[in-house]
Formats: sequence, structure tokens, C-alpha cells
Amino acid sequence: MKLATPYLLFIGDAHDQLAAKTAAGIAYWRPEQCVGQLRLPGCNADLGLPDLSVRQAADKGARTLVIGVANRGGVISPAWIPTLLEALEAGMDLASGLHRRLCDVADLARAAERLGRRLIDVRHPTREFEVANGKPRSGERLLTVGTDCSLGKMYTSLAIEREMRRRGRKADFRATGQTGIFIAGEGVSIDAVVADFISGAVEWLAPANDPDHWDLIEGQGSLFHPSYAGVSLGLLHGAQPTALVMCHEPNRPHMRGLPHYKVPGLRECIDANLEAARLTSPEVRLVGISLNTSALDPSAAESVLRQTEDTFGVPAVDPVRGGVGPIVDRL
Amino acid sequence: MKLATPYLLFIGDAHDQLAAKTAAGIAYWRPEQCVGQLRLPGCNADLGLPDLSVRQAADKGARTLVIGVANRGGVISPAWIPTLLEALEAGMDLASGLHRRLCDVADLARAAERLGRRLIDVRHPTREFEVANGKPRSGERLLTVGTDCSLGKMYTSLAIEREMRRRGRKADFRATGQTGIFIAGEGVSIDAVVADFISGAVEWLAPANDPDHWDLIEGQGSLFHPSYAGVSLGLLHGAQPTALVMCHEPNRPHMRGLPHYKVPGLRECIDANLEAARLTSPEVRLVGISLNTSALDPSAAESVLRQTEDTFGVPAVDPVRGGVGPIVDRL
Repeated sequence: MKLATPYLLFIGDAHDQLAAKTAAGIAYWRPEQCVGQLRLPGCNADLGLPDLSVRQAADKGARTLVIGVANRGGVISPAWIPTLLEALEAGMDLASGLHRRLCDVADLARAAERLGRRLIDVRHPTREFEVANGKPRSGERLLTVGTDCSLGKMYTSLAIEREMRRRGRKADFRATGQTGIFIAGEGVSIDAVVADFISGAVEWLAPANDPDHWDLIEGQGSLFHPSYAGVSLGLLHGAQPTALVMCHEPNRPHMRGLPHYKVPGLRECIDANLEAARLTSPEVRLVGISLNTSALDPSAAESVLRQTEDTFGVPAVDPVRGGVGPIVDRL
Repeated sequence: MKLATPYLLFIGDAHDQLAAKTAAGIAYWRPEQCVGQLRLPGCNADLGLPDLSVRQAADKGARTLVIGVANRGGVISPAWIPTLLEALEAGMDLASGLHRRLCDVADLARAAERLGRRLIDVRHPTREFEVANGKPRSGERLLTVGTDCSLGKMYTSLAIEREMRRRGRKADFRATGQTGIFIAGEGVSIDAVVADFISGAVEWLAPANDPDHWDLIEGQGSLFHPSYAGVSLGLLHGAQPTALVMCHEPNRPHMRGLPHYKVPGLRECIDANLEAARLTSPEVRLVGISLNTSALDPSAAESVLRQTEDTFGVPAVDPVRGGVGPIVDRL
């Protein structure tokens, strides 16, 4: 399942910028793969890309319309259907990261069938995986792990890929979530895999490679998140990482979605991840800490970064403020 | 999804006793729910139950034919179909723990539809679960955990249920695997749940209960099994256990299916499970160790049990040899 590029980013009637987060991530990391955006009346988001009709996008070569908007319930709005049908007619595939499947919308399924287009629901794995075998494999793999969900694991992985490639290194981002899959053009939505195959799916996603090649694997969740830790552990074991980057947001009051759970301490979380990772990767090491300091002013951010470096003896960066150069120096 | 009892245990053309392991487990733990066994020509297994035809079983009140035989690939053999159709005609549901689904066999699906019978594939969850919320809930819960797969977690949980009920305590076995589900008549095949919902499914399976009620939750896998640890961790968090029993087989040479992985030490495995369990159940404690000593002679078994008790300060039992009384004393 490789998505055809370039994309037309559909953000429909997104009621604010946050609802278009997926599209914004794609536009930020892969501007060269986006011909433009398509907005419907009532849309309050803007990706800073040219506004195109389906016809204009097709003329510019768009091969996939990506639904890059989230809404309550993850449903495909009836208001979107005429545009989606038009895109199919114009020669594009449709791709979505929503909970509801494109192929469950009868009109879309029929049109795609008739026209020979693909309906790609990246949240729903379409292939079967093997159970993980845990066998050592060649190549280097870096996994971003975290104290919680949604604090920059994907961003950090992509920033490391960009910096390594800039330096002429062999590096590939490996996507484990919906936005990441659109950005990479392929990947596995790891939290949607059947539980038995979590680690096996990651072994498939990041297979043996050249000794000097780095897979930069997008982490998910946290070993300390009571809802998702199983996913995080299976991902950690399957990744067989040689390097970990711990992602954290200082001052976050509690675990995402769970006001009754505190965010774990950095030390505790680093130790737990290294210990668990050693099962399949005995030589694993921590190579850096990525802090999301968006809630801090520049001097407070600088101070917490320096303090974190002093405490843990590895580079601490905010990839948005200062890039990830010091971490890449360690690889 | 509650299975209708009593069962007719179908072991088809099982080529040896091991192939009928599922049926044997049901017959051992729930003899009162089994009217008899049905064997086809070539069957080399025997459950020690009366041999019945479909008609005889129906006359004795059988309400579900359980396919209690395993084979390579987990397929439904064409040789079984006439018997399965006969059972549907005679008023029974069909239940299977095989990988391939009953409902994908067109003849069975049509007959079940026509007759209003159920085709129950216990390996495949039929309901959707919520993401776990990790909120403290009332009632006591004991989870069996292990150093590896397949060393007696289900057996230990069921033995504790039996002993507690014998003593007049409120206790329910909660099944997380196929054989366990047939025995309990309900449950969730936890390794078949979508990864995001592992813990949530366990919260659903073992909900809040009376303060003096014990749920005895069947563990799966091991935190140290590179293929399945994600399932084990999600199960541990969702179970919110107040008590753990560690299951282990002394002298097992390596992790099941993985010759390149050693079995972890008991101490290491107990510490890792307690530490992980504290996330959702801060007061969790180890209440016993269950050793599978089937490979040892009686005096060697006795010696390793005493030694284990001395080392860990909790009762160590082999439930097959001596029951689980000393563990139940601690609950």
C-alpha cells in the first residue's frame, strides 16, 4: 500500500486550524508532494497552499485526494461526497485516516470500482502480519518514545530524518500513525493492528537494512499511559532499536485524556524504556531528549533544555526551536 | 456472546491427544457441561466422555457443538462439514476457536441463517471496546502472569476459582483465550483485539464488582516474550490486579517458539510485573507462585517448590500436584 503522489489536501469544512492538523502536518513536512488545498464553504482552516478545484488539482498532476481533516466520530460527512466523487472521476485515489472507512460509503465504493481507483483507509491495515520472531537484524534503528501521547514523537522522528539526509546519511522515516503514513506515503497504523501482531508488524515495517542505514521509527503512546502501554511495548520490542530519543513536555499537568494520572518523571520513563528495549536490543542507548517547550518563553525553554542535558548527559533539544542537530551528531 | 450449554465436544479426526487439547481442557474443567464427545473415523484422541452421534447428543440436550480440535493452519476440514450441518439441523449452535471462521464457510453460513442458529468464532471478537480509562474500580482481581507462554496460567486461574468456590467465596474466572472462553462460556480472546483496545477490553471483561468478590483473570504471554509482551502489558494494566500469581516452568530451556531467547529469572520477572502493574493498581502484591513441575519427579518437584517459597516468601504450588490451597489462604 503505497500512496500515489502528489496529493490534493482536502480540508473540507474544518471549523478551525486544529481540525486540519493532519493536512497541516503533510503540508509542513512534504510541501513538494502537495499541489494545493481544497476547502469547502465554511472552512476556517488554511494550509497556506494554493486553493484548487478538483479539476485544477488534476491538471497539476494530483494523484491522491487526502482527507486531512478530523471531526467528531471520524465520519465521512455527506457534504464531502460530491467533491470526493469528482476526484475519483478526475483520476485520483482517495485516502483517509478517519475511523469510518471510505469503502463503507456505497457511492464511493461503486465509483472507485467502476473507475479502477483505490480507496485507502490508512487507519485500517489491509495486510496480515506475522508474529514477531525477535531475531537480531542488521541496520540501525532509532525509536522515539515518550512520557505521554501527543508531545512530538512524529515531529522529532521527521526532523531527525531531514537533518540526517541533509548530511548525506542514509535515513528513512517509518510511519506508525495516520499523519505519518500520509507523509511517508506508506507505513502501518500500529494501534489498529490485531494485538498479537504489534511487534511483528514493526519488524515488517523496519526490516533488516545496510549497517549504516538508519530507520527513524515513529513512536506511539507511552509505557506509562494506562490506555496504550501495550501498543508502546510491542512497538519497542518490534523496533529492536539501537537508539532511543525520549520525548517529553515539561509542565504537562497529567496524562493525555486521563486527569487522574500524572505524567511520569523523565528518569523513571527513560529507565523503563531502556530496560524493556534491552529484551530485543541489548546494546540500546539513549541518544537524546526532545522537549516540547511550546508553552515556555525562550529563556525558560533554554534553561530547561540545559538543565535536562546536565541531568541526563545526552543532548536535549526542542526540534521546533533549535532543530535536532546535537542528537544527529550522536548517531 | 454467551455460549449455550451443555456442549457436544467435537474432536473430529484429531490425530493425537494433543490435537484435542482444547476439548480436553473443557472436559476437565466443566465435565457437567459436556454431554459427550463426537469422533470421526481416524480419530486418535479420547476425552473419556461417552461417544455420541449428533442425534444422541441432541436428545441429551446439547445446545452447542464445540470444535475442540486444532490442526495446522486452523482450518475447518471439509470432512467435518456434514457433521457440522447435522448439528445445526439438530438445533445446536456451532462454536470454534480456529483461525478460519465458521461464517466464512458458505454452507454453514447458509444453514445457520436458515435455521436461526449461531456460528460463534471465539477467536474473533464480535464487539467493539472502549479505550481503557484506568479509573480505579471496586472488587478484587487476581491476574496470573508468567515467565513465558503455555506454562499453566489458565489452569492456575481455574484451580483458584474452584478452590475459592469450594470455600464459599465469591469468585469468577475471566477468560482471555479460546479454551478459557469455552470453559467460562464467555470472555474475550485478548490477543485478537485491536491493539488500541487491549486494556479497554480487559476493563470490560472484569468490571467493578463487590468489594469481597474476586475476578480470577487468565493471563497471556509474558512481559519477556518478544512476540507478545504488548498483549501482556495491556492485559496487566487493564486488569488493575490487586494480586498477582507468577507462573513458571523450572528448567524450560528457552522462550516458547524462540530458541534464541532465554526464559527470564523469576525475580526479574516478578519485579517487572509488579512495577508495571503499579501504574493502575498501586497496592498490587504477589500472592503466590505456580510452578509447572511436570518434567520433574516428585521429590525434585517438592524441593524446587520449598526452595521457591524460601526465596520469595510467598506460597509456591504446583496446582496439578498439590492444588492451590496455600495461595487461596492468602486472598
